[in-house]
Amino acid sequence: MQNTSKPQRVDIDLGDRSYPIWVGTALLQAPSTFAQLPKASAALVVTNETVAPLYADSLVANLRTQYEQVHMVVLPDGEAYKTWQTLNLIFDALLAHQCDRKTVLFALGGGVVGDMTGFAAASYMRGVPFVQVPTTLLSQVDSSVGGKTGINHPLGKNMVGAFYQPQLVVCDLSTLSTLPQRELSAGLAEVIKYGPIAAPAFLDWIESHIDALMQRDTDALAYAVKRSCEIKAWVVGQDERESGLRAILNFGHTFGHAIEAGMGYGAWLHGEAVGCGMVMAARLSLALGHIEPRYFERLLQLIAKAGLPTVAPVLDRHDNAARYLDLMRVDKKAEAGDIRFVLIHGQGNATLGRADDALVRQVIDQSCQ
Amino acid sequence: MQNTSKPQRVDIDLGDRSYPIWVGTALLQAPSTFAQLPKASAALVVTNETVAPLYADSLVANLRTQYEQVHMVVLPDGEAYKTWQTLNLIFDALLAHQCDRKTVLFALGGGVVGDMTGFAAASYMRGVPFVQVPTTLLSQVDSSVGGKTGINHPLGKNMVGAFYQPQLVVCDLSTLSTLPQRELSAGLAEVIKYGPIAAPAFLDWIESHIDALMQRDTDALAYAVKRSCEIKAWVVGQDERESGLRAILNFGHTFGHAIEAGMGYGAWLHGEAVGCGMVMAARLSLALGHIEPRYFERLLQLIAKAGLPTVAPVLDRHDNAARYLDLMRVDKKAEAGDIRFVLIHGQGNATLGRADDALVRQVIDQSCQ
Repeated sequence: MQNTSKPQRVDIDLGDRSYPIWVGTALLQAPSTFAQLPKASAALVVTNETVAPLYADSLVANLRTQYEQVHMVVLPDGEAYKTWQTLNLIFDALLAHQCDRKTVLFALGGGVVGDMTGFAAASYMRGVPFVQVPTTLLSQVDSSVGGKTGINHPLGKNMVGAFYQPQLVVCDLSTLSTLPQRELSAGLAEVIKYGPIAAPAFLDWIESHIDALMQRDTDALAYAVKRSCEIKAWVVGQDERESGLRAILNFGHTFGHAIEAGMGYGAWLHGEAVGCGMVMAARLSLALGHIEPRYFERLLQLIAKAGLPTVAPVLDRHDNAARYLDLMRVDKKAEAGDIRFVLIHGQGNATLGRADDALVRQVIDQSCQ
Repeated sequence: MQNTSKPQRVDIDLGDRSYPIWVGTALLQAPSTFAQLPKASAALVVTNETVAPLYADSLVANLRTQYEQVHMVVLPDGEAYKTWQTLNLIFDALLAHQCDRKTVLFALGGGVVGDMTGFAAASYMRGVPFVQVPTTLLSQVDSSVGGKTGINHPLGKNMVGAFYQPQLVVCDLSTLSTLPQRELSAGLAEVIKYGPIAAPAFLDWIESHIDALMQRDTDALAYAVKRSCEIKAWVVGQDERESGLRAILNFGHTFGHAIEAGMGYGAWLHGEAVGCGMVMAARLSLALGHIEPRYFERLLQLIAKAGLPTVAPVLDRHDNAARYLDLMRVDKKAEAGDIRFVLIHGQGNATLGRADDALVRQVIDQSCQ
């Protein structure tokens, strides 16, 4: 186990858009954390009602040593607010303060704050710099790498957005101490994901440290965050614009997005939907003969131990499977209505594939009971 | 003079985002015009209420030979509608038709349609291909090159957007036959602009062909569009993200944006505001001793001959100059409230510079009477 007293660094190598991720404790208030950012006269901290009272003061006080003006905008909390109306609060603040195109945006919060702040940064004056300060496990392992930003549309999740890279990501593990247990579990879903798609040894490690992770052991969390970022960086580095390989990161997400859309955004946490979606995608892989029953059981047990749901919700009493299929057909990854599933093969491999509706229906039926 | 029976091509060289601009007549209905685009099952034509009855049928009929599905969305016409609400009509249409991430968007109209369609293409599923089919002189010479897309915010013009390159630009000169004379003049403002900032010989050519241009001589228009695109491409090619040189393309725009914002968007056409803004920026250059009085007079005469306003509007009866200064300070090009003007030097050179408020006030006072 690594010593976390010293922050650890993961480098995301994207040519002239490269940036570092720092993983450690008490980073928010450390003066050195933000010392390397480009010079600017103003910073805007974007956060939400839940996170602001916990961590905004520390961050703002730290940034005041570096920027003449530090403004803040506090958004309502929740996936339901990942909308244009909320995004516009960021633009309103930027323009009310006459922020210029060198202004640095800081996203302090979970994935929703990060996605919206990133899209605001991508779009304000056609692009200003931004920094991710993720305060949830999910956002530390998932939003830190990949440059995906955006908002939801009433007809689909993350349908409007941009690929846009931050200048810096700061994963302060100290902020995880206030995270509700349900959100910790949701974050573990994305940690677990990396095992079956790309890293068998990491899956072994997670299995033997799942109790330490659930108890928020700092060393275990540090390793889980760092390793997840490294694996994601390796995948994304080969496919920045999501044309091929990168799509394997969506393991569990096709079914998961259907769950989120079908239940109404916010009913289940994204990570919970992904956890259950991984069970469904693994079951589909099993039905196609790509994995062994024992491996499927292993994943199922681990997802359950992480406190995640493993039984899928019924979305429509009359024709539940049809509802799932309809919802999956409008997913971004679908092409001309053809659903592309991330399927796992053996241990630590994944591919994109199609499946007969009849087989998918059977998997949905099995997963909902 | 060139023969326009054969379309002419300008290549915009931006590495893997390079694209061609075609300039010619009757291109909308020519089957070869769109033959080289990436394969997709669906296309969405975005146009407005004014352009749709004139040209949408031709374009849609042509595209039907190439795409299984061709959808259309008709936006309200005018700068006042360059808003998120209107942009969202494009997302609504894309999602209602379950358009996937290969769907090609076609912007059929002027700059507003082009800017909004481009931003929708940049943002839908984080990026789908798009084609510019500009039907105004302004958009043919200005929006064809540079990749600027976006919408207005109540507190500022073009404040939200993206740099995003089209796959192809089709400048069909036949569509200029239906253009109101006022809009033809507005387009000529951006044509004239290239002379003082970069191309003395082109300024000479415009002066000797201003009557032919005002009478819509096809050969004269073809040369003006092609040469404007070439000059803009040369400038932009050296500075895609507008960090330095490219800013000279904003000659007349700092004053012009203040006029547009101060009068309320839509009162003056963008090109009219730029025409008058060029007079103001040239007068400031004269006051700073950068150009000769005779050259200033020459520009003033040409702008007037192009049917453009040369006397600036009074925006505030009590302190008109202060109002102009306030509006210019929130312009995107301002930095920390410091206004950066595009100033011309001699004939065919331009730089970014600052000027004392007192001198700017004097120029504003002189320009408003």
